[in-house]
Parts: sequence; C-alpha cells; structure tokens
Amino acid sequence: MAFKFSDAVSGMKPSEIREMNKIATTPGMISLGGGMPGPESFPKKELTEIMVYVMENYGDMAMQYGNTLGISSAINAISGMLGKTEGFTPDPTQIIVNSGSQQGLYELGTVLANPGDTIITEEPTYVGAISAFSGNRLRMEGVEMDSNGMIVEKLEQTLKKLISEHRAPRFIYTIPTFQNPTGYTMNEERRKHLLEIASGYDIPVVEDNPYGKLRYYGNDVKTMRSMKGGENVIYLGTFSKVMTPGLRLGYTVAPEEVMEKFNLIKQALDLATNSFSQFVAYEYIRRGIIYTQIEENKRIYRKKRDAMVTALRENFEGKGEWSEPEGGMFSWLTLKSGADTRAMKDKAIKNGVAYVSGQAFSTNGSQKSSMRLNFTFGSVDQITEGVRRIGKIVEE
Amino acid sequence: MAFKFSDAVSGMKPSEIREMNKIATTPGMISLGGGMPGPESFPKKELTEIMVYVMENYGDMAMQYGNTLGISSAINAISGMLGKTEGFTPDPTQIIVNSGSQQGLYELGTVLANPGDTIITEEPTYVGAISAFSGNRLRMEGVEMDSNGMIVEKLEQTLKKLISEHRAPRFIYTIPTFQNPTGYTMNEERRKHLLEIASGYDIPVVEDNPYGKLRYYGNDVKTMRSMKGGENVIYLGTFSKVMTPGLRLGYTVAPEEVMEKFNLIKQALDLATNSFSQFVAYEYIRRGIIYTQIEENKRIYRKKRDAMVTALRENFEGKGEWSEPEGGMFSWLTLKSGADTRAMKDKAIKNGVAYVSGQAFSTNGSQKSSMRLNFTFGSVDQITEGVRRIGKIVEE
Repeated sequence: MAFKFSDAVSGMKPSEIREMNKIATTPGMISLGGGMPGPESFPKKELTEIMVYVMENYGDMAMQYGNTLGISSAINAISGMLGKTEGFTPDPTQIIVNSGSQQGLYELGTVLANPGDTIITEEPTYVGAISAFSGNRLRMEGVEMDSNGMIVEKLEQTLKKLISEHRAPRFIYTIPTFQNPTGYTMNEERRKHLLEIASGYDIPVVEDNPYGKLRYYGNDVKTMRSMKGGENVIYLGTFSKVMTPGLRLGYTVAPEEVMEKFNLIKQALDLATNSFSQFVAYEYIRRGIIYTQIEENKRIYRKKRDAMVTALRENFEGKGEWSEPEGGMFSWLTLKSGADTRAMKDKAIKNGVAYVSGQAFSTNGSQKSSMRLNFTFGSVDQITEGVRRIGKIVEE
Repeated sequence: MAFKFSDAVSGMKPSEIREMNKIATTPGMISLGGGMPGPESFPKKELTEIMVYVMENYGDMAMQYGNTLGISSAINAISGMLGKTEGFTPDPTQIIVNSGSQQGLYELGTVLANPGDTIITEEPTYVGAISAFSGNRLRMEGVEMDSNGMIVEKLEQTLKKLISEHRAPRFIYTIPTFQNPTGYTMNEERRKHLLEIASGYDIPVVEDNPYGKLRYYGNDVKTMRSMKGGENVIYLGTFSKVMTPGLRLGYTVAPEEVMEKFNLIKQALDLATNSFSQFVAYEYIRRGIIYTQIEENKRIYRKKRDAMVTALRENFEGKGEWSEPEGGMFSWLTLKSGADTRAMKDKAIKNGVAYVSGQAFSTNGSQKSSMRLNFTFGSVDQITEGVRRIGKIVEE
C-alpha cells in the first residue's frame, strides 16, 4: 500500500516533536522551549474537589455528549467572567467552547477563508496559528512589530498592497497583549487605530488573548473587543493559563452570524467539547477559584519573569536585544551577531538547554537570529542557568 | 461589518440543532433521534474513584499539555485492549488518541485527500462522517448496502466508474459492524473481498468500529484490521460507547507513515487530546473496568434492542422494512408507502417522538422514506411507546 497524502499539512515534523519530547525528559536538560505553564500553578486540590462534586451533581450530563457550541452553564459562566476580567459581557449566543483555543484558530481559518486566501498576522506570530492557518491552506502576510506591538501604519500599507494584488485579506489576526513569541503589548492608541483601519476596509479582526490576565507589571490595556468599535472583534480566550491546559478548554466570542458557521464546523471537527471539562470550568468560575488562581499565578510567574530578565541582562548585554515583557510567558531574544539560532540548536541541547528558534514563528522565513524563551515552566534556578548556558554558546 | 464566509461548512443547521436540543428536553418527548448512550451505562462511581486517583498520582501530567499523538500510557493501554477485544495488537507508534473518533474522521479527510477529491462510503452512511468529509470539501460516492453490509460487487463497479472519470477515490470508508445508520453487519466473506479489491486498486481502507464491542446476539465477525491482508487498514475506535462520550476520547490506528501526517494535522487542530481523559482511560483499562462495563452495557442494551425490534414488528408489519441488528445502537426503518420521513417530522414531534430522517445519512439525497431509530438512550418503555407513536403517524 502506497499512501498518497494531501498537501494540507505542515508544521513541526514528528521527528522534531519526538526530539523535543526526548529533550524535555533528558535529565539535567533545561527547556525554555515549550509554552507550558508551571505545574505549581495547577490548583490540583481544588480541581479534585470540583471533579468529585461534578460527578456527584452533574454526572449524567458531564459524561454525555454536550451541545455543539458548549454546555449552557459553562457558556454563561464564561460570559460573566469576561465581564469581570476583560471589560465586556458577551451574550451567551456569541460564545463557543472549544477544545483549547488552538481549535478556535483552526475553526476561524476554515469558516472565514477559502484555501489560497490571504490573512494578516503579526510577524513573528504564534507557531500554533501558523500551523492552524497552514492546515487551512491560507497564505499569511505578516506585519512588522516593535515593542508597542503591530506597527499599524505598516498594516495599512500591507492592506493596500494586498488589495492592489487582488488578494484582500479575509481577516487580521493579532495577539495584542504579551504577544507570543515576542512578549510585546500593543498600546491603546494602536488598538484604536487598528480597529479604525479594519472597519474602514471592512475586514474582521481576530483578537487572541491567552495571556492577558497574567500581568506582572504596569497597567492593563483594554481588550480590543471591549473598546468602542470593537463589538465585532472575534475574541479568543483559554483556560490553559488560568486553570490547566490538560483539560483542553478555550472559547471564541463572535457575532451570532459567525457562530452559526462555527457550529457547523465544530460538528465536523469533534462534535462537541469535553462535557466534563466544561462542568469543571463552570464550577471553577462559580466558586471564584479562577480569580484567586490568577493572582496566585501572577505571584508565581512574576518571580520567574524577573529571573529571565535579570539573566538576559547579565548574559546578553551588548550581544543581543530582548523583550522585558510586563506579563505573559515569553521573552524574545535577538542576537546582534546575526547568528542562525536554528543552526545553534544542537549545540544548545548538547549544553543542556532548549529553546525555539525564531524562524518557527515567521510567516516569511525571517527571524533567523531570534529565539523564544519561556519563563513559566522552569524554576527560577533553571531559568537563570538556562539563559546562562545559551549565553555561553553564543559567546563561543 | 459584513462577514464573508468560506464554502467549507455544511451539515445540520444551527436552527435544526437548537430545535433538536429543545425537542430533547421537552417534557413527554421521546427521542429516538440522537446517537447517545444510555446514562445508566456510565460507571460514574468507578470513574469518580479513577479521577481522584489520577489527580493524586499523575496530577501534574494529567493537567499539562500532552504529546501530540497521545499520552504514552494511554496509547499502550489501547494497544493491549485491542489485542484482547479486536484480535490485533498494533505497535504503539501506530496509534493516535483523538478528541473523539469524529476528530479521527476529520483528520483522515484532511491528510488523505485534497479538496475536490472523491472518497467512497456506504450509502447510507454516518452523518458525522458526511459532516467531516464535507468539511474537507470531499465528494462522496456511496455504495449500496444490503443486510450483509456494503455490496462489494457494486464497490468494484463504482471504482471502475470513478477511475474512468479520472477521479480515483482516495480511500474507502466503511462501518462494517452494526453500521450507523442501518445496523447492518458486513459478513466475513465480503470483508475479505473488500480487502482484496482495495489492495488490487491500491486504495486505503478505513474501518470505523465504534459499536463492534456491543454485540447482543450472534457470533463476532473479525475486524478487517485483524484479517489477513488487513495490516494497512486504518482503524477508528472510541471510548464513547464503552466508557463515556463526555470525556471525548477516540483513537486511530494506522501505519506509521500515515501517523506522521496525523501528527501534523493534530497540532493544527487542537495541539493534543485532553490529558486528563487519557489518564482516566488508561486507568479504566488497567483496572479492567472496561471489560466488565462492556458486558454490563450489552446486558442493558440487549433489552432495549429487543424492545425496539418487538415494537417494530408490532407496529410496522406490512407497512415497512426494518433492520433487526445483532448489536450496536440503531435500527433502520424504511416505509413501504414511500412517504417522505423528513416531511413527517413535525407531525412526529407534535405527537411526542423524534427520529432522524434517512436523507441526513445519504451521500446523494436518497433514503427519503427511511429513518434511523436509536435504542440505547431511551428506556424500554420509551422505546416501545416511541415506535408506537411513529406507527400511528404513518397510519394516518
């Protein structure tokens, strides 16, 4: 049997993944590569109590197939939570609960665009978004960023260029707060400007906000969805960073006309999201544990972020430029030497440290001298030592 | 904002789904429509114990992102279970754990075919498969069935026709045992013949086996994957019918070269399946509960199947033809009058009973006089009364 495959799939090769998994479990190895929360941020005791309660009180529903868009009680709880933490309270009919917000990205690429269509992202952008949109056979046009996020003037140039090439983008995808991979946050002025431009060109905006609640310094910047003119923004959120990723729960907020399409594709993808996880999240919000856990996670991660920033200052002064994010999970390091971080990777692993090279986040093959460094998974000591090891390799 | 949508999505309309959900919760309504297990088949006590154990013993892993293809312990357990119940023991490298076997179908449509390609299914076939393959923009060519499953002679005719039209199918999708919607089981001779034909034309076979373990009468027929010449069959299984659907767990067994592609699309779709659900399934198998629960479910469902068959005999003698399946979840009723079951639906609902009309399962708009009747969800009394109500409507 000779299997013939489609041209749909791209992303990290299984061999690369196997290698990454192997690396992650090698004794002494420090991984700054993944995008995982620290296990100490999982409220296991509270979750266990909730799980038993859910089985005793909603067992038949929690073990059964749920509605395609989600379990009503979970949807209502998410709506209320967004009102408290993000400044907007969507109608429950505007919410779909997904198997992680990764699924939300894939759904978007399926319902808002046809294969071959173009969309706009930041450059660099989240590797999982590249994977989802590539899976949908979309073309990505990245807009340059600076430490204040997507450079909105360049967005307008890109739009004009694409329209002149008869490939008007189907949507604009942005991670405005503590962006993955850069850690940059778009300021309020740019958010306003972006909404105005998108409205002028009648192009939907997708705001992906997995990290927004994890702010360690500075003042909140409003979510675009909560801003004037942001009512039609499609908003993606997740429980992975404020509860646990293992329960695979994310959600998308969108106008009802979009929701109808999500409903159809969700049936095709996996019928419905895990009912049990949804009941757990419902109780997690209802009991208010999510709000205390967000504060706890901020306390945990602030220290780790400080360790990362201190280590970068100590090891890369004059040799690199790096982001010092006010929140989120990642710092972005660019080497002044212009060295190829992908080529350096094997050496790094031999020296007991792993990172993700910048190119993985690029829509156009650039970002070769950059790398993404995670500061939520490892301990403070591991982060300090990991960055030191990378510094040593770069010096050689 | 005027959203522009892709042409990817089809399936049940949200309004139809909302209506179905409403119907399901209307007091006095008997739903023979869905494909849900009976809640009395959920081993809630054992599952609660397992959940607490998982949190105490594997909590950090169960709450974290897992490997793309699945948690090793779950994969190994699935392999061992298949050896015990299905007659083949795949290498763990040949298994991916999915968010339900629906996701396995979607993945197949993405990696084995490009948009516009043709695949072969049974006619009628599972509505979720139609939804998944439509989502992938595939064309479905259905092969007629009789009570012994897909008519394999017609399969060969269809293959020849498609090849002459320069649209050789990318794979053959079959639910050989207690098929959804018909309840028919393909006999061993036809399975052999199907494998020979597929091998001769070098076309992959996909064997979907969600119901195989639920046999109430007669002798097991070998899974195609376990037969000589079936080594390359892509096999889909699920925990939805032998544990619970709410935990969303299915799996696909395929040669490693296919697995590499699944790995890529799975990253795009939702990164990885729920880690917690996988650990629960691992313990569920390890403790042997799955095997006792299968026997328990057979005991529960055999009675319901008998009630369905008895009611059909009592109410449709001379008025219809129906399947009397030896297992699974569904009977298939075809009205001799040729009446359109979709047109009858409103009347049925007014009379307190719901079913799914045959057309929903058709690849070509036929099956208009048929309906699918589920016998696992309702009680024996509800099944008896539900079929009686349908009989009354048909008479009028």
